[in-house]
Amino acid sequence: MSFNRLVRFVPASDSKAVLIGEPVDAELDVGLAIRKGDEVEVKVFSGKSALNPGSLSDKTEKIARLLSPLSQEEVGTIRCIGLNYKRHAEEVKMDAPSEPVIFLKPATSLADPYPAPTVIPKHTKSTDTADYESELVVVISKPCKNVSESEALDYVLGYTAANDVSSRAAQFSQSQWCYSKGFDGACPIGPVLASSNLIPDPSKLHIKGSKNGNVMQDSGIDDLIFSIPRLISFCSQGTTLPAGTIILTGTPAGVGVGKDPKEFLRDGDEFSVQVHPHIGTLTTVFEDEK
Amino acid sequence: MSFNRLVRFVPASDSKAVLIGEPVDAELDVGLAIRKGDEVEVKVFSGKSALNPGSLSDKTEKIARLLSPLSQEEVGTIRCIGLNYKRHAEEVKMDAPSEPVIFLKPATSLADPYPAPTVIPKHTKSTDTADYESELVVVISKPCKNVSESEALDYVLGYTAANDVSSRAAQFSQSQWCYSKGFDGACPIGPVLASSNLIPDPSKLHIKGSKNGNVMQDSGIDDLIFSIPRLISFCSQGTTLPAGTIILTGTPAGVGVGKDPKEFLRDGDEFSVQVHPHIGTLTTVFEDEK
Repeated sequence: MSFNRLVRFVPASDSKAVLIGEPVDAELDVGLAIRKGDEVEVKVFSGKSALNPGSLSDKTEKIARLLSPLSQEEVGTIRCIGLNYKRHAEEVKMDAPSEPVIFLKPATSLADPYPAPTVIPKHTKSTDTADYESELVVVISKPCKNVSESEALDYVLGYTAANDVSSRAAQFSQSQWCYSKGFDGACPIGPVLASSNLIPDPSKLHIKGSKNGNVMQDSGIDDLIFSIPRLISFCSQGTTLPAGTIILTGTPAGVGVGKDPKEFLRDGDEFSVQVHPHIGTLTTVFEDEK
Repeated sequence: MSFNRLVRFVPASDSKAVLIGEPVDAELDVGLAIRKGDEVEVKVFSGKSALNPGSLSDKTEKIARLLSPLSQEEVGTIRCIGLNYKRHAEEVKMDAPSEPVIFLKPATSLADPYPAPTVIPKHTKSTDTADYESELVVVISKPCKNVSESEALDYVLGYTAANDVSSRAAQFSQSQWCYSKGFDGACPIGPVLASSNLIPDPSKLHIKGSKNGNVMQDSGIDDLIFSIPRLISFCSQGTTLPAGTIILTGTPAGVGVGKDPKEFLRDGDEFSVQVHPHIGTLTTVFEDEK
């Protein structure tokens, strides 16, 4: 059985269990509700993974802790696209690329939504250059390789949101994209995985990024330089994308390093990535490494 | 129980089994023997993984098919170091970096030694720029994060060899290191995992790369710009390296793109990476994608 909007969570009834389910309120912004401390009720699937959810029961559970919709083991090596919004390429003063630019994050960077914090490593704190990047995420449903653009959306399980957390000093010192964006906690995703049935055309989605309540990024997904089908096709050339693979599709204009003066993330800051409709708000609180 | 030199393999007695073991002949170059079609006898461990080998039995098995010493699941996201030999940085006309340059390969690029082929994707074949890179590989024994250089070698399980197979056109068009080196089959490793007990000082190893029998790369590991302890420490800053993580430590001078005229890998070519002593010869045959 398939889902419309899937959450993975620890239920209030059993702090050792991990369940997947569908929020009872089909319109609820689950991330925002959890941030406010509201109770969120979920109908539970019999399976353990978005890739094989099993059947939906009438039984409901309350969320004690919201988890990333897929686990580190399920996502494996994370694909990310650099410079994929026209206005963002302008703000960081780089030419728009002629083909998608791919970098990777290790699976260990995957993190849960609020209240799980993202820790700013000492390495990044010492340069005071931790930055946010609001991104739409594509989740692959079945293994794909050498797929064409026209068939690419057949391999999409759904969409969620991510923050491509970046250490700008490390990134620009030696063009270290993998290193500077691969620290533990540098890839929170969530709050829900919205099925491709709900989102037949991802270019119609809208993304917004807010720091401590102030809107910093605000863009239609139709500002992409390379479309979602083009990204999937490109990433799959010569390369198997296993089921569960996630692709972060790039960030719109408005990152901290592009502001004048630059604005970086510090201990206690809160950043929210909101993708509308269906996906909702992914909130991350930042903490300095002790 | 620990091992001296570990192989993972499909035994002649059962084509569905995967075993780990220790070659009976402690001096044998297992990769060379398999390439020549010789029988290789192995004492079998009770466990299934180099990370937890269990106990060694007196039972021996013959190798029917040699596998990478660790599986894709065990290695996870693969760490690689760019430009880490002085003479190689010179030949590709790039400045020696001021800190280690990290890129990643997806777990799906991991491949078995000979006779498993590495397929040159259509994408790379069309530009005729498939290239080899002989590398020494470090295998991490237990989770590590923020380790110092002085304690780094305590986290090493052992060493093996790799070929960091690269598509130069993709690499240099948009500085696409992850993409151009991440295709399926782009990371054969083996033939054996030699324990750090056998190799207390990896800088004393020697590496050689041969194309169709002609030596193309030939260097001491002491030509490294950044030492093995420095690489482990650097990769672990802010970042958990799970047990089983592999780090490819860079390639010495002599790659195909650095020759005059340039020399690339083509259908039927055979490339061998030989690390001396203890590790032996990793041979890969290249095939065009059909």
